[in-house]
Order: sequence, then C-alpha cells, then structure tokens
Amino acid sequence: MRLSARNMLKGKVKAVTHGVVESEVVLELSPGVEIVSTITKGSAEHLGLKVGDTAWAVIKASNVILATE
Amino acid sequence: MRLSARNMLKGKVKAVTHGVVESEVVLELSPGVEIVSTITKGSAEHLGLKVGDTAWAVIKASNVILATE
Amino acid sequence: MRLSARNMLKGKVKAVTHGVVESEVVLELSPGVEIVSTITKGSAEHLGLKVGDTAWAVIKASNVILATE
Amino acid sequence: MRLSARNMLKGKVKAVTHGVVESEVVLELSPGVEIVSTITKGSAEHLGLKVGDTAWAVIKASNVILATE
Amino acid sequence: MRLSARNMLKGKVKAVTHGVVESEVVLELSPGVEIVSTITKGSAEHLGLKVGDTAWAVIKASNVILATE
Amino acid sequence: MRLSARNMLKGKVKAVTHGVVESEVVLELSPGVEIVSTITKGSAEHLGLKVGDTAWAVIKASNVILATE
Repeated sequence: MRLSARNMLKGKVKAVTHGVVESEVVLELSPGVEIVSTITKGSAEHLGLKVGDTAWAVIKASNVILATE
Repeated sequence: MRLSARNMLKGKVKAVTHGVVESEVVLELSPGVEIVSTITKGSAEHLGLKVGDTAWAVIKASNVILATE
Repeated sequence: MRLSARNMLKGKVKAVTHGVVESEVVLELSPGVEIVSTITKGSAEHLGLKVGDTAWAVIKASNVILATE
Repeated sequence: MRLSARNMLKGKVKAVTHGVVESEVVLELSPGVEIVSTITKGSAEHLGLKVGDTAWAVIKASNVILATE
Repeated sequence: MRLSARNMLKGKVKAVTHGVVESEVVLELSPGVEIVSTITKGSAEHLGLKVGDTAWAVIKASNVILATE
Repeated sequence: MRLSARNMLKGKVKAVTHGVVESEVVLELSPGVEIVSTITKGSAEHLGLKVGDTAWAVIKASNVILATE
C-alpha cells in the first residue's frame, strides 16, 4: 500500500502505555531521537505493538509545524 | 517557550517551495532522513526560512499515525 | 502494511485538481457519497492518482468531529 | 449552521466507549462501513450520544490521507 | 446542528485570500485578537465568505497545542 | 523560538483534568471566552501546568474549520 502522507519515519517501538481509550507509543528513530504517538487503544491492540517491533511514524505534511530560534 | 507537542525534531532546511496560499518546506533530520511540512505562505515568509537554516519539526502526538508490516 | 488509523474508507477517484503546492482529490465511496482530501501536489503525483483509480481515505479517529441535529 | 469542512458523512451511532478524558464513538455509515471518532468525554456527554442516534462525521479535507495499492 | 468540537470562537471575517486549491481566511475574535484558517477554495466559495461576515472558528481540542514561557 | 503556526492565543489556565494517557486543559482567553486542549498527560506534567498559569493556545491554520449561520 502506498500513502499520500509525505512523512514515513522508520523506528523501533521503545514503550507502549495503554489508557482506557487512548494508548501512547514511543518510537526510537535513531539513538536519542524519539517520536511519540497517541493512537486509540483499539489500534494499538489491532497492530499488536510490542517493545522492539519495527514501525513507521506516518505524518501528513499539513500536521507538521515548523519552529526556528 | 516550552510546547506541549511531544515531538520536536531538529533538522536543516533543504528546500522551500511557495504556492499562492501554502508553502512546502523539506527538512533534513539526518543524512537521507527528511520530513516535509506544508505551512501557510505567510508563515514561511514570517519565519524567513532559507535553505541551510536550522529548524525544528513540531508534531503533536495525536497527529502521528503508526504503520507496521 | 497495517495502519493505526482506524478509518480506511474505500472509493473511486472522481476528480483531481492540482494547485501549486496542494492538490484536491474527490473519492466516491458509494453512489452520492463522496469524501474530499487535500494532499501535497508531490503526493498526488507520487501516487499517480487518476480518475477511476481505486483508493482509500485514511482518517485518524482523533480527526473526526461529530455533529448532531 | 454551515461548515467549511468538506466532509460530512451521515451515520447511526453504533457504540460509545468512555475513558477518563476521551471517548470513542463508532458510527455506521452504511451496512458494514463504519467510521471511528475519538472526542473528549465532555463533548460526548454534551451531545448526549447514544446508540441508534443519527450523527454526522465531520472531517476537514486536510485531515484525509489517501492510500493506493 | 451541535458539534463535538469543544472550541467555537465567534469573530468577524477580516480578510479572504484565494489560492488555486486553498484559501486563507482571517477572523477578528476581538480587537487585536485574530485567528487564521486555511480551508479549501471550494469551501470558501461554498460559504460565500466576505469581509465583515460573522463566522465561528471551530477547533477540535486535540488540535490545540499549549505553550508556556 | 518562533513558530510557523499562525495562531497563538494567550490565556490563563482555568482547569486541568488528567486521564491515564491524555489530559484536558481549559484556557480562559478573555472573560467568558475559553479554549479547550487535550494533550498527552506526559506533556501536561512536563509543562507543569497549574490553574492561574499563563499559557498560549497554538493552533495551525489548517486545523481551523469555519462555520457560518
């Protein structure tokens, strides 16, 4: 499957925290560089995400804010 | 200023393309790893973004979709 | 590839309009039921979207607002 | 009230799950075609959503990612 | 119509700029306090937005990032 | 730090509610005008948000839907 989302960053699952409706997943993109995602708990269970799994962070370009000093 | 957005990825501006209302900015996070952002043209001009500038990609955790194989 | 986005709605591409940076794509989900997406022009070209193609609308649950009468 | 969001998909509430802060609502758009929304628990209570209610999924075009095979 | 979006901020249209696919609309919420929205050009035309019109900025709680000093 | 997000609305923290993964924060922008944000609990704790604190609501223009009567 190909996606229109321009950003697909590959990483390793570092942590998964489940709430009642939402779950928080931390991916390590490279040593010291992490990305955090909140997805529905249903999604986290559907994907069966576990620490050490390979996963991609998929981010639409319109959801990326830029900051400068 | 501190932000609630959990994801702040540092990179170098690699390309800036202006439309009428929107602009597309490509940041290089590390060799071969890029992130694309679309922001309003007004923002791009306000930040004065140029190739080679340091900038951060700011992404809310709720805007990160996860994909697995 | 499996996605954490809970919503993947299958449809046929009905129209593609290109801007300078953004493109607008209309999918027909079922007779009379359409969904509109704006993606970067780069994405539309990368996917090579044409009228009649099969495509899925991928929507994160946190991006769905609900309305009632 | 008229909205700028281009996507308003009509459906029936099929399930409502409350968390502490967030609630998950499943709408059936047509037989076998569902859409999932996560909204704040305050919103779900404010709208008084119950199974069987008619509701619309309101989605901004810029929040629709496209996928192709 | 009632919306699950928790934020509905009332204002006056102060400016409308049309691109090819996207339009930028500036609302004045109160003297000196503005909010900017980018919507599809189709939406702006569908709503017939003109300077001086009353309009509401509708923002999902999950799309609000917080910043502190 | 300067942000590409066009909307930075200054307010006072009026309420903070923590869930397991998410927290809800209410800012008062001006008397009777509030804005609600849901952020990850980790973010709320990282920012140390308390009632009475000054904070800004940061909103990307592409996340603002418009409504008219």
